[in-house]
Amino acid sequence: MTDSLPPLDGLTVLEISSFVAAPLGGMTLAQLGAEVIRIDPVGGGPDLHRWPLSPSGTSLYWAGLNKGKRSVTLNLRDPDGQRLVGDLLAASGPGGGIVLTNAPGRGLLHHASLSERRPDLIHLQIQGQRDGRAAVDYTVNAATGFPLITGPEDVTGPVNHVLPAWDVACGLYAAAGLLAAERRRARTGAGSVITLALADVALAVAGHLGFLADAQLSGTDRPRVGNHLYGGLGRDFLTADGKRVMVVALTPRHFADLAAATGLTATFAELERLLRADFAEDGDRYRHRGVITALLEPWFTERKLAEVERALADTSVLWSPYRGFAELAGDDNPLLQEISQPGVGPLLAPGSALVMDGVPGARPAPVFGADTAGVLTDMLGLSAADVRALAERGIAGGPVRSDE
Amino acid sequence: MTDSLPPLDGLTVLEISSFVAAPLGGMTLAQLGAEVIRIDPVGGGPDLHRWPLSPSGTSLYWAGLNKGKRSVTLNLRDPDGQRLVGDLLAASGPGGGIVLTNAPGRGLLHHASLSERRPDLIHLQIQGQRDGRAAVDYTVNAATGFPLITGPEDVTGPVNHVLPAWDVACGLYAAAGLLAAERRRARTGAGSVITLALADVALAVAGHLGFLADAQLSGTDRPRVGNHLYGGLGRDFLTADGKRVMVVALTPRHFADLAAATGLTATFAELERLLRADFAEDGDRYRHRGVITALLEPWFTERKLAEVERALADTSVLWSPYRGFAELAGDDNPLLQEISQPGVGPLLAPGSALVMDGVPGARPAPVFGADTAGVLTDMLGLSAADVRALAERGIAGGPVRSDE
Repeated sequence: MTDSLPPLDGLTVLEISSFVAAPLGGMTLAQLGAEVIRIDPVGGGPDLHRWPLSPSGTSLYWAGLNKGKRSVTLNLRDPDGQRLVGDLLAASGPGGGIVLTNAPGRGLLHHASLSERRPDLIHLQIQGQRDGRAAVDYTVNAATGFPLITGPEDVTGPVNHVLPAWDVACGLYAAAGLLAAERRRARTGAGSVITLALADVALAVAGHLGFLADAQLSGTDRPRVGNHLYGGLGRDFLTADGKRVMVVALTPRHFADLAAATGLTATFAELERLLRADFAEDGDRYRHRGVITALLEPWFTERKLAEVERALADTSVLWSPYRGFAELAGDDNPLLQEISQPGVGPLLAPGSALVMDGVPGARPAPVFGADTAGVLTDMLGLSAADVRALAERGIAGGPVRSDE
Repeated sequence: MTDSLPPLDGLTVLEISSFVAAPLGGMTLAQLGAEVIRIDPVGGGPDLHRWPLSPSGTSLYWAGLNKGKRSVTLNLRDPDGQRLVGDLLAASGPGGGIVLTNAPGRGLLHHASLSERRPDLIHLQIQGQRDGRAAVDYTVNAATGFPLITGPEDVTGPVNHVLPAWDVACGLYAAAGLLAAERRRARTGAGSVITLALADVALAVAGHLGFLADAQLSGTDRPRVGNHLYGGLGRDFLTADGKRVMVVALTPRHFADLAAATGLTATFAELERLLRADFAEDGDRYRHRGVITALLEPWFTERKLAEVERALADTSVLWSPYRGFAELAGDDNPLLQEISQPGVGPLLAPGSALVMDGVPGARPAPVFGADTAGVLTDMLGLSAADVRALAERGIAGGPVRSDE
């Protein structure tokens, strides 16, 4: 790190959000130096207590997705609470005027109303379906085709992913979309109204990766191939000490190195002759994956993980042991830094995976609602008495001390 | 669409890439209006023939990930080919000077050399591990913990995802990172050298979603819960006509609506009393997911999908039938537009999931290498004879007509 300004220095984003996608989008910007103010209903949104929880009951999910933000609570169903959002938007300076949300834009929170307060408004609305119907990662995923080709070959039903991959992609698209819109605004002065549907993210990614074109042209769905890598050579293997490793050969060099390391060079050459195949080709490695991996299997089952590691270490072969989260969390990686998370205590937390000058390290999430008075005072010039009056009327969350 | 300028109008990115992450990052920018020039080795990189293939043998994977780019081929191992990359960088105008790559920066392609050609260089290097070691989505995923908790509860080994979710996230982080760096450069004139490791993306996302904190604090890994939604109520159900649906109740309202639609309101109330539970709480819906879903199951197995659809249509319940890719590809969604993809023919392809003024619709990928002569002529002012001479020396790919 040098003393460069953070890349998003001066950018201010109001985030009215819940769950994964919008919060991750905002946090991606916060981790690059933007000021992100998450605005929640007084009392919390539906994600405030989402599992996993810390032993004391704090949501580790909420804490993880809101690192480095400020937290403000307002009554978002009351016009006075909605008006305060407009006030904050109007007061958010030249790098502000940006709203990221997955909440329905009721009343004064509709982008048309907000753009009256801030004509250069950049408004990004995340929604389930393009037509506004609700959807979440789990239902969108069911509709994408992936669960029907994920999992062991002998399973007949769907296998859901555990990683909410569409939410993650949606949040990152949102971050990129806001930055693209802000670039245009800096050049032309024009704001943007952007919509981003979770279902569209899934459809687009399935298309970009060739799954849709494949189905269109073949009229059928790709088969379920378990842990095999589709269209190449890759699979998991069990080792003598009961560990599992994932091994991948994406290129002819990877395959040659794998054959050499396992002593199978001559065997594979003979097999190529017998099958009239060329294992330097992706397609042939994939078509003959059964026999190739059957030949490789004993080499792994006869060796402990440490031996496998030694044999593959200086080769081009792509491989990794399978690990659990507890082991992953113990990685000695500078991405993980100890933070003191209110309600949780000391925790190793990741900063931005983007390593560049000026990017701040990991920062804790705020105490829920703790910045309400501070933000209203700093940005709108309200007095402590004003804030107390708003809190008494239930328009703003009560003053919260950070040690509560 | 209006006649607004595309959000990334004037941005020019040189992409030296292969496989998913870097190409998706570049394509995300191209779909927002940037000019993205993908530079490959003459003859193609390792992803040029990656499956799935069209009936004629064109890679649908390559075509899907390079839509809307120009394709240039140069000998990237020869200093003269490397020098041409520097020439293109130097000639790429005020919105240029941007390199996105996952290739090792050999010789004159190292960012230090490139920054001599363009002092305000923005260089984003995608790599496997933070220390530069190779890794791909499949090996990174093995190390994250997700495969050990994905899949049916009775499976003991790992279950790999089929969606290369880390590659997707990495590409989208790259797009956001480049835009953040370009924003800073527009304000301060300073370039950026950025690294982004695929393994860091996985570690960061696992952290952001609370998986790492949970494992740190509990010392154990989350259990495998099949298609159940962790920490809430959600699961797949079989219908009378052999279809599968995913059903999710994330909030008390969702659960109340699900209970009402299935005629189980009184049953669940009695069950809450017996179990001393409160199904308005996420945690109690999750703890008692076995009995709750066992009670729901007959309602689904006794009804055909169409009946399920009618019963849930006007409720808040989140649900979706499972579908295959062929069905998904047939969606009547304006995101999918017919393009004419060279080597493939007419194809429905997705544009950007970000819907905003000025964002172009879906565009085909280029013919591999077809823009070599055009780009060298337009950007460097080379004559046709210069380009032919470079092609004869094997420094540039041969002139390719777009009808080849």
